[in-house]
Amino acid sequence: MGRSAKTLHSEAYREFRERLRRARETVAVGKISGAVGTFALLDPEVEEKVCARLGLKPAPVSTQIIQRDCYAEYLCTLAIIASSLDKFALNIRHWQRTEVGEAQERFTMGQKGSSAMPHKRNPIISERICGIARVIRANSLVGLENVALWHERDISHSSAERVVLPDSSIALDYILHKATSLIDGLVVHPDRMLRNLQATKGLVFSGQLLLALTQKGISRETAYEWVQRSAMKVWDENQNFQELLQKDKDIREHLSSEEIDGVFKLDTYLRNVDTIFDRVFEDKPQ
Amino acid sequence: MGRSAKTLHSEAYREFRERLRRARETVAVGKISGAVGTFALLDPEVEEKVCARLGLKPAPVSTQIIQRDCYAEYLCTLAIIASSLDKFALNIRHWQRTEVGEAQERFTMGQKGSSAMPHKRNPIISERICGIARVIRANSLVGLENVALWHERDISHSSAERVVLPDSSIALDYILHKATSLIDGLVVHPDRMLRNLQATKGLVFSGQLLLALTQKGISRETAYEWVQRSAMKVWDENQNFQELLQKDKDIREHLSSEEIDGVFKLDTYLRNVDTIFDRVFEDKPQ
Amino acid sequence: MGRSAKTLHSEAYREFRERLRRARETVAVGKISGAVGTFALLDPEVEEKVCARLGLKPAPVSTQIIQRDCYAEYLCTLAIIASSLDKFALNIRHWQRTEVGEAQERFTMGQKGSSAMPHKRNPIISERICGIARVIRANSLVGLENVALWHERDISHSSAERVVLPDSSIALDYILHKATSLIDGLVVHPDRMLRNLQATKGLVFSGQLLLALTQKGISRETAYEWVQRSAMKVWDENQNFQELLQKDKDIREHLSSEEIDGVFKLDTYLRNVDTIFDRVFEDKPQ
Amino acid sequence: MGRSAKTLHSEAYREFRERLRRARETVAVGKISGAVGTFALLDPEVEEKVCARLGLKPAPVSTQIIQRDCYAEYLCTLAIIASSLDKFALNIRHWQRTEVGEAQERFTMGQKGSSAMPHKRNPIISERICGIARVIRANSLVGLENVALWHERDISHSSAERVVLPDSSIALDYILHKATSLIDGLVVHPDRMLRNLQATKGLVFSGQLLLALTQKGISRETAYEWVQRSAMKVWDENQNFQELLQKDKDIREHLSSEEIDGVFKLDTYLRNVDTIFDRVFEDKPQ
Repeated sequence: MGRSAKTLHSEAYREFRERLRRARETVAVGKISGAVGTFALLDPEVEEKVCARLGLKPAPVSTQIIQRDCYAEYLCTLAIIASSLDKFALNIRHWQRTEVGEAQERFTMGQKGSSAMPHKRNPIISERICGIARVIRANSLVGLENVALWHERDISHSSAERVVLPDSSIALDYILHKATSLIDGLVVHPDRMLRNLQATKGLVFSGQLLLALTQKGISRETAYEWVQRSAMKVWDENQNFQELLQKDKDIREHLSSEEIDGVFKLDTYLRNVDTIFDRVFEDKPQ
Repeated sequence: MGRSAKTLHSEAYREFRERLRRARETVAVGKISGAVGTFALLDPEVEEKVCARLGLKPAPVSTQIIQRDCYAEYLCTLAIIASSLDKFALNIRHWQRTEVGEAQERFTMGQKGSSAMPHKRNPIISERICGIARVIRANSLVGLENVALWHERDISHSSAERVVLPDSSIALDYILHKATSLIDGLVVHPDRMLRNLQATKGLVFSGQLLLALTQKGISRETAYEWVQRSAMKVWDENQNFQELLQKDKDIREHLSSEEIDGVFKLDTYLRNVDTIFDRVFEDKPQ
Repeated sequence: MGRSAKTLHSEAYREFRERLRRARETVAVGKISGAVGTFALLDPEVEEKVCARLGLKPAPVSTQIIQRDCYAEYLCTLAIIASSLDKFALNIRHWQRTEVGEAQERFTMGQKGSSAMPHKRNPIISERICGIARVIRANSLVGLENVALWHERDISHSSAERVVLPDSSIALDYILHKATSLIDGLVVHPDRMLRNLQATKGLVFSGQLLLALTQKGISRETAYEWVQRSAMKVWDENQNFQELLQKDKDIREHLSSEEIDGVFKLDTYLRNVDTIFDRVFEDKPQ
Repeated sequence: MGRSAKTLHSEAYREFRERLRRARETVAVGKISGAVGTFALLDPEVEEKVCARLGLKPAPVSTQIIQRDCYAEYLCTLAIIASSLDKFALNIRHWQRTEVGEAQERFTMGQKGSSAMPHKRNPIISERICGIARVIRANSLVGLENVALWHERDISHSSAERVVLPDSSIALDYILHKATSLIDGLVVHPDRMLRNLQATKGLVFSGQLLLALTQKGISRETAYEWVQRSAMKVWDENQNFQELLQKDKDIREHLSSEEIDGVFKLDTYLRNVDTIFDRVFEDKPQ
């Protein structure tokens, strides 16, 4: 089960790399076509040779500048990756909630989790990632606004790009590193996960029961009603789901006591987990 | 304790109303100054009279159109209010988590919380509010982009405003209604709140203990270390905080057994709650 | 006529100041209510006294932090002002176009307008203002995203605000200064304005003519058709509008030669300009 | 010269198509992995078969939903294309300015350009495209905010996507069609382009002159000063650039009268235009 975070992590990182590679390629464009893009003073050949030496493609058509759509794409790509890191970090913050406690950021003894409350272990790295993702997200809009420039004479994008291109690049690099070390050092509590599952008193198996009933020919609508009425008692009266079902006449008419017990098995939910892992890793060497 | 949500709610709504009133005033502006704002064919008096009859202020200077900064302010104001509703809804989603369970959206028997899982009571209204807030937030940017128009001849804002002005107004109205009925019907579980507090085995009182020690002359740094070492044992070894402290020689040298027990009182945290309520409601009739 | 830019400028700046004053007031809020906002360790009185000494209002309700809607409002206000400066700068860029030439940024002899083209005087300050406005605009979104935090324990806004609060404040201060000196030093060419007006060969008076005809009892629809057919010839065949109208039988049936000539007067468009100036300045000492 | 707009147009459209194809591929993903993505009730094979029949790839890892980064990418792609159309439309608005007049939207006789001014031919389609691009741009942010969802249980993106996915798709389709017919019917005025070039009294050749001087061994710094001092006189005293240079002793010491005249040739700027066209069209059948 501990593989899970790593797995998602790796698959995501492969996508990040592919997205970054594509974005890098998009901006690997050069131009030496003169002040209005007409090659008035230099031959296109010069542009081709210089760009080749720099590992750049010549922009097919340029003006005083390279068209800004490629930089917009670069900034949007950084924003998408930052938003995915935001998602990881957000989930770690959830797991680290005292009431959930399923995983937490590594915490070393000397460290202070909170200046006012010595017992606290706050997910400070995760919160930082979430915050910085907002900045990278917003910067993508600057990239988009920079696209609509005036014919051959407009460098209004310049002042804006001097802020957002380095800021977004550095900030994404920073949170990628933070997210990597965060996941590497993530403390996972499988026992707490199990305890949280059990805390629902069997309710998490309701979907499974619904299926068992429909397989006996009960309409989905009717089965839903039967299952829901017991489920609501579990929430409202703090009863045990499995026991309530064993006492439900409608259900027992169609499912034996053993069949009901058979529904309450975690194995059903776990049986395809390895297939998911295989799908993610198989034939995809990093 | 049940007053808490209502209170925050009311204070927030008062601010919403004040913000909306101000935003409404900002856009209550009219102009009949002709095609380029020069009053070439009509006297300024006509503008003043017509505007007065419509309950509008005449725009001091206009072109073919009224300057768009006021509509930007209107859309930003809607976005700020939507973001505050987003915050309320987000917190309800947290409270309704199975592991937290401190409050939840009203749920009626016939209702289905999830098509696949009959036991579920998902915070569907809260999630909807969070989603729609994102749309209203983004629309504010359209308002900001609309400000920089070309001198007396630019109606590029027109096509954009036909989308965002009604959309943001209607969407905010919708989520304000949803949020109101959501809070009106909110099911609050004080017992669960207390249980969640107790689940920390006394750790939530660590700040209180820190204070008690510093009041005895211990440096904050040293006190922090003493408190933290026991706190960490509670997390890692599942022990009881209060008992660990009673056995801690450093701490017992400065605090009596009674003084330690005195720290573990919720009353300390609740003693100023009524003052907060008073601050929010006093002298502020709705 | 030279007053025009200054006037718009002053009126706008008065609004900027008022907006900034209000935004400043919105964020002039403090809290010393403890780690979760309950005044567990300090009395509310302390908060009131400290805030008063700092010129701040105590936040009526706070958690670990002050609610972020006020900072969102601050950042949106900066974005609205930046967008208005964007508008000014955009119009100067238009005026400075070679084909328009009605106004331009101050240019000193030693200065280089373009490294490749010694004759150029590019509106570099205006372009810079437009670009930076995009950054300030996007930052407002970070402010809006920061509002929806998790109950009493979320400082994800912190990393984001460390970037956008100083960046937007400094950037707006910078472009306000740039815009001020830009308008102070603006070189205005009234002769070129007049030449541009005349370049339409009288077409700008078409609205006036439409009015003169409708005042003679001609339906607006018919008058529009009569005026438009001559106007189109001016565009397409490079003829003189006034002369074409004098030869138009339909029009001459209702308007005398003198009445037609009377339409072609700039004075009609300028007669209310002083009223506009008065409206802007009267009774509004800076 | 008339090919120019078409050329840029075609190259841009090829890129648009490639971007859209890639974006479409990104969202062509499906999942039938159950309520929490574990394939509890159905085998992964079912997902693979159903997805294959629908022309979709199975999402490698899913929860209750498909991860939203692909929809963010889709919306960002639409925003980039809309911003490029914004650029086209913006430039047409410039060209159609009375003072520029180099190109304009098709205008049919019955059409009204402005209700108040019968002579007007406003670029209404271009303005509409610019406005709608702002909406599509802002919607991309909703896509980005939708990425950070809560582990297996969050459908807050749903209400937002019901607005922005159809709105952005339909709006981009609309402005793509509008832009296509706009460019198809664009009225181009080469004579006016030439006239605008000549209006600078030869100044546009200043870069060429700078080059001629440096090729004679004059330092760039010195050459710049010599060229600029004459150029400034053209601006400020309305003189002819070519004549001023012929009288400049410093310049004449290094360039013969014929060499100076040789600089003032448009051919130099046009000689590589066909190469640009070839680069854009060659080996790239649509």
